[in-house]
Amino acid sequence: MNLVKELGEHKIIEIILRCLEPMPKMPVPFGDDVSAVDIGHGKLAVIKTDMLVGKTDVPPDMSLRQAARKAVVMNISDLAAKGVKPIALLASIGLPRSFTKTDVKQIGKGLNAGAREYSAYILGGDTNEASDLIINCTALGIIERERLMLRSGAKPGDIVATTGSFGKTVAGLKILLQHLSVSSKLRKTLVDAVLSPRARLKEGLALAQTGAITASIDSSDGLAWSLHEISKASNVGFLIDNLPVADEARKFAEKRGLDPVELCLYGGEEYELVVTVKPKLWEKAEKAASLIKIGLVTKERTLLVEEKGKRIPIEPRGWEHFKTN
Amino acid sequence: MNLVKELGEHKIIEIILRCLEPMPKMPVPFGDDVSAVDIGHGKLAVIKTDMLVGKTDVPPDMSLRQAARKAVVMNISDLAAKGVKPIALLASIGLPRSFTKTDVKQIGKGLNAGAREYSAYILGGDTNEASDLIINCTALGIIERERLMLRSGAKPGDIVATTGSFGKTVAGLKILLQHLSVSSKLRKTLVDAVLSPRARLKEGLALAQTGAITASIDSSDGLAWSLHEISKASNVGFLIDNLPVADEARKFAEKRGLDPVELCLYGGEEYELVVTVKPKLWEKAEKAASLIKIGLVTKERTLLVEEKGKRIPIEPRGWEHFKTN
Repeated sequence: MNLVKELGEHKIIEIILRCLEPMPKMPVPFGDDVSAVDIGHGKLAVIKTDMLVGKTDVPPDMSLRQAARKAVVMNISDLAAKGVKPIALLASIGLPRSFTKTDVKQIGKGLNAGAREYSAYILGGDTNEASDLIINCTALGIIERERLMLRSGAKPGDIVATTGSFGKTVAGLKILLQHLSVSSKLRKTLVDAVLSPRARLKEGLALAQTGAITASIDSSDGLAWSLHEISKASNVGFLIDNLPVADEARKFAEKRGLDPVELCLYGGEEYELVVTVKPKLWEKAEKAASLIKIGLVTKERTLLVEEKGKRIPIEPRGWEHFKTN
Repeated sequence: MNLVKELGEHKIIEIILRCLEPMPKMPVPFGDDVSAVDIGHGKLAVIKTDMLVGKTDVPPDMSLRQAARKAVVMNISDLAAKGVKPIALLASIGLPRSFTKTDVKQIGKGLNAGAREYSAYILGGDTNEASDLIINCTALGIIERERLMLRSGAKPGDIVATTGSFGKTVAGLKILLQHLSVSSKLRKTLVDAVLSPRARLKEGLALAQTGAITASIDSSDGLAWSLHEISKASNVGFLIDNLPVADEARKFAEKRGLDPVELCLYGGEEYELVVTVKPKLWEKAEKAASLIKIGLVTKERTLLVEEKGKRIPIEPRGWEHFKTN
């Protein structure tokens, strides 16, 4: 257990966090989706940084334009989960020496497209020589402190909901990585989920205004992992009785003899929001954004999914750097 | 001219900038040391991102702790040049699979040390698997809009000054890369400049308060390059008649048969501030921070250095990724 490839990403983060002196009165604790600084007048400057690495984050068939756009969307998704409108992004780029002028243009276009889709702008950045493609984006937004949605406020009895269904991205990834053939319509939907992910910004911003949300997270490490993160931060459990398996993921699972529950829970690289909602304000939340009710928050700190009358534990696993491949 | 290794960093940045839709009313134009967003009440949120790559930015003998500290200092130096106090930083880290737990700890400690030296905190980040060590830091600070020092305000007749002398870092780098032997005292000073660079934050903050500074930049790409950047942004020229060659760099140059002017102007990886000062407020500026007067801003857009009665052009070259090695 001494090499990072054995430690895994979560353990590595733990080691680094132990080296850091925490800022007094941090508005957002270590480990939430974003970081923040008090800027007075009841407002926070919210920042998020996330790195895309060619080798691990760019699947075959993803163009450089799509990769650069994804690097932006990854960061915007985290702001979206907190209810924060992104204003500006910075992009630090590492380029292998063999990249061409056209490659650089595609990256520039992808960065701009990703930002403008969400009404934000790329304000600056840095370019470097690197062995592998690296695109590190940082997003900045401003929010009223009281509107910020953290991971830590879920209460027993709250409704658990997601902004969409799960399983398409992991199915699409399998198609790309294992060169599977499926019907062209199914392929398009599943592969699109991988190549052109969308951040649920409109939904996050609208939900933050309702006052109905007690906890929120994006699902870039998978649905199961997101639930475990809320569980840890809020000290609660979950009973999920309506797994939001995407129709296309279910079809794919049937055809390939795979378990749709596995695809839905443990996929990762999805960008739906997972939220807990005050039951009394459920209608208000549902009006603000289209939500799928998937279960309830429980007092007991166990995470269970009910499928066909049987309750099985939701494991704390999902996408993790170093541990995958 | 189609591969990035032939284009060079500055051309690559130009290509990317052409792809970006600029934010309306940007408080800081593209190409200055930092980016900024208006947060109301006459204030700006200032952000900067800069990537350290093991292969190109970490010389032999630099420990991981020092590398991580340097990744922080690089970013703080840019805020310092603008007069902005850093509050918080984010760190995105790419780690080769072969790194150990101890390596990770050293990186964590270096990040924390760099931030705390300048009273800032690391608030969060991201870890990834990468082929090479990557440490990308983003720094955030808040400043009153009218205090921000840009590259663009230098006027003919202004005094040009630096916060210190130049040439030590490039001399130290030569010692490390070419395994040169020099006296242990000289070696210590020169190598220290490489391994433990210092951002001129105290000086930058004090200078920003004087109202005396018309343009400011840090010198991470070298003194010559910094002067050319101010020249471009302010549409002025320079006559430098007092080159701030560090004593140790001069000694090193003598012993090695090198040109001290070359070491001073074209070194790079230095973190002194290069500023232009209103002549009437020179004393106020000098009281705020120890400054070396090195020359004058000229109307004619030529950059000249006067050495032993001869005027020679200052070339637009310095440290540039892809072009070096």
